[in-house]
Amino acid sequence: MSRPRALSGFPELSPEQRIVEQQVLDRLREVFELYGFASVETRAVEPLDTLAKQGEIDKEVYAVQRVAAEPGTPADLGLHFDLTVPFARYVLEHAHQLAFPFRRYQIQKVWRGERPQEGRYREFTQADVDIVNPGTLPAHFDVELPLVTLAALEKLHVDLGLPPVLMRVNNRLLAQGFYRGLGIEDTVAVLRQVDKLDKIGPDKVVELLTTDVGVTPAQAQACVRLASISSADASFVDEVRALGVTDPMLDEGLDLLADVVQTAGAYVPGRIVADLKIARGLDYYTGTVYETELVGYEKSGSVSSGGRYDSLASDGKTTYPGVGLSIGVTRLLVPLLGAGVLRATRSVPTAVVVAVTSEDRRPSATAVAARLRARGIPTEVAPEAAKFGRQIRYADRRGIPFVWFGAGEADEVKDIRSGDQVPADAATWEPPAEDLHPRVVPGEQG
Amino acid sequence: MSRPRALSGFPELSPEQRIVEQQVLDRLREVFELYGFASVETRAVEPLDTLAKQGEIDKEVYAVQRVAAEPGTPADLGLHFDLTVPFARYVLEHAHQLAFPFRRYQIQKVWRGERPQEGRYREFTQADVDIVNPGTLPAHFDVELPLVTLAALEKLHVDLGLPPVLMRVNNRLLAQGFYRGLGIEDTVAVLRQVDKLDKIGPDKVVELLTTDVGVTPAQAQACVRLASISSADASFVDEVRALGVTDPMLDEGLDLLADVVQTAGAYVPGRIVADLKIARGLDYYTGTVYETELVGYEKSGSVSSGGRYDSLASDGKTTYPGVGLSIGVTRLLVPLLGAGVLRATRSVPTAVVVAVTSEDRRPSATAVAARLRARGIPTEVAPEAAKFGRQIRYADRRGIPFVWFGAGEADEVKDIRSGDQVPADAATWEPPAEDLHPRVVPGEQG
Repeated sequence: MSRPRALSGFPELSPEQRIVEQQVLDRLREVFELYGFASVETRAVEPLDTLAKQGEIDKEVYAVQRVAAEPGTPADLGLHFDLTVPFARYVLEHAHQLAFPFRRYQIQKVWRGERPQEGRYREFTQADVDIVNPGTLPAHFDVELPLVTLAALEKLHVDLGLPPVLMRVNNRLLAQGFYRGLGIEDTVAVLRQVDKLDKIGPDKVVELLTTDVGVTPAQAQACVRLASISSADASFVDEVRALGVTDPMLDEGLDLLADVVQTAGAYVPGRIVADLKIARGLDYYTGTVYETELVGYEKSGSVSSGGRYDSLASDGKTTYPGVGLSIGVTRLLVPLLGAGVLRATRSVPTAVVVAVTSEDRRPSATAVAARLRARGIPTEVAPEAAKFGRQIRYADRRGIPFVWFGAGEADEVKDIRSGDQVPADAATWEPPAEDLHPRVVPGEQG
Repeated sequence: MSRPRALSGFPELSPEQRIVEQQVLDRLREVFELYGFASVETRAVEPLDTLAKQGEIDKEVYAVQRVAAEPGTPADLGLHFDLTVPFARYVLEHAHQLAFPFRRYQIQKVWRGERPQEGRYREFTQADVDIVNPGTLPAHFDVELPLVTLAALEKLHVDLGLPPVLMRVNNRLLAQGFYRGLGIEDTVAVLRQVDKLDKIGPDKVVELLTTDVGVTPAQAQACVRLASISSADASFVDEVRALGVTDPMLDEGLDLLADVVQTAGAYVPGRIVADLKIARGLDYYTGTVYETELVGYEKSGSVSSGGRYDSLASDGKTTYPGVGLSIGVTRLLVPLLGAGVLRATRSVPTAVVVAVTSEDRRPSATAVAARLRARGIPTEVAPEAAKFGRQIRYADRRGIPFVWFGAGEADEVKDIRSGDQVPADAATWEPPAEDLHPRVVPGEQG
């Protein structure tokens, strides 16, 4: 094999970057579990017809087929492109053994055969939280989902130094009730045009609404004004009311969105706004919709999106409405790692290297390492018998803070950063707590 | 969608089983890191020609191709079928940024398009540890690898109640040196026949050695006698010596194998034997070979295998010898879960459910939950305002031990197992340590 080349769109992390990713994933898991979400993993493949019927995404699916399959046999499996479709299938398949409402988190890789470009990956990790229930799902779960997601993202900010986030929330009932209150029937067509607001601007949207959807200029202006409203508290409600439109569905949407923004704002202050232009495309969402930008990295797109879906999972008899949010771990992390914003304090878990001065002393070094490991201190034995300087360089190159000398004879431990070397007992010595495991710290660009 | 059916060979765990799997994976990771192994994840796909040139395995590879690819275009990617081939590629691709000797662990899913049968999976999780180095790799790493692997498997036994293991070790240098010492030239041909010992018995092997390989009956008898030797200590060395064969390669193999068995036996007593019939097929191993059975589940096959490979990774200029072991997490765990040997004490992370007696009291319940979570106690708020009995049943169905009543008014917490209900303060109350997180315990069949 000559030196292999990277595959575009399939990012692979260095060991040091992987330490950062592991700490991110550990904290997401910790917060999800604090909120009582149970872990689920689904198989990587789904029947192609399950994946393909989601509409526009079908061109991005990777088909999977045994190399040994009869030539000409069509593939019947594909790699999942998100975790929502597999989760809907999992719920239907395993409904008889699940307890509802079912709260699950799922952290797995997904694959999309997209043309690779900045911020687009063909393989990436998603971390999803969803709650589903047969029949109906109470509206308070629309409040809880951003709470757990923002708590998780805030933990990444506070514990690991990732940038803070801003979650933008809207509710389709609000917009569709408003359009209905204006006397517009084809509310979905309006939503489709309003979704283009950021791309083409308000004038173009008004034009499209009047020419393509056929609403009056006054109606079109009102739709665009609605979409311009945003607030970090419940004051958006008064702004909407001031537009003079009334409709019961609008009321329902306003109440729910106000509850979401107020509750999440109370527990994770400053990280959520009601933003009435958010539409999240035209996929399966039916109520609340969420998207989230990383402050300072807005052009990377949403790092956490989701919403309420009332009919994604159905076996014909029972429908399972749900509400969920998905954190794009790769999309969040890889640009920060690439830009050197975050790094780990070392590239290995090891806190101590036990030096070996001659191969016949290796058993003593192994014994010291065993005693340190027994007390939870990650320890390596030096790979070769070598002189002082070479042992230090081995540790230094990896960022390992301590080297242990004289194993079993005249035990001493050196902090290679300060150069301090002190007598030590493998049965009692401990590194400072901050040196026990690698930490995530700001990088050169952080 | 009607109710979907399971895909044969793609096991999916229930939330409760997944808790067991997570605890298994956490402990493997903990031990690997205690020994200074760094985590690596490689992409799920490799170029098909990398996967296919491994010989006999090529029929089991899943090819991957975009659904939108031009019809008739041959697939050029496949899903990895193990973690060794991708790791060898990773080392070559990223060599310039790795520190050698490079110690990595890798826990990922792999895929094989095999005919599904008992104990065979199409998607399964492997946990690999390897050490590689350019040029040469000292023999003491052949000793360290079973040490870390046995420490990890022993932790699963002690902490989680999995059955103990027995690792069987051999060394190809020993066998090939012995054959050479007997005057046999084609040592690989002998190895190939001796590998059949367990399947066809000693008489048949002797017959094949004389008829197919062309060795004398005396030589054949000696080869079979060598393969019958095993010991949990270094006494196998004397047994081999007693066969009267001498060869420098034999000596090297004997010394190394004795060191492996003695060191691992000293640190993880009773879990390793030298077993001179172990051959591990004819794949890329060149020295020490390991395989591991789960005591009481021997017929499931090896749950942890590996060995020394001297030339798996090479870019034409530099060769990276390595030694590694792979734990088959799915093969280890799914039969135990299926047989009910292990279970989790509950199906969710939640320790406490905060009851809601009317929806207008939900904010108080949310506030209590937030205070408990802030101190690391996994907490859910009840999904609906309901009476006492219904709140208890919600918790009971999931195995959640505590229900919190009277949030913010007359706070009390009930242990639903004992029925004890006591006044509690959300700022200070803690569940007993053993109830904080789900634990893995023996199941009905355990």
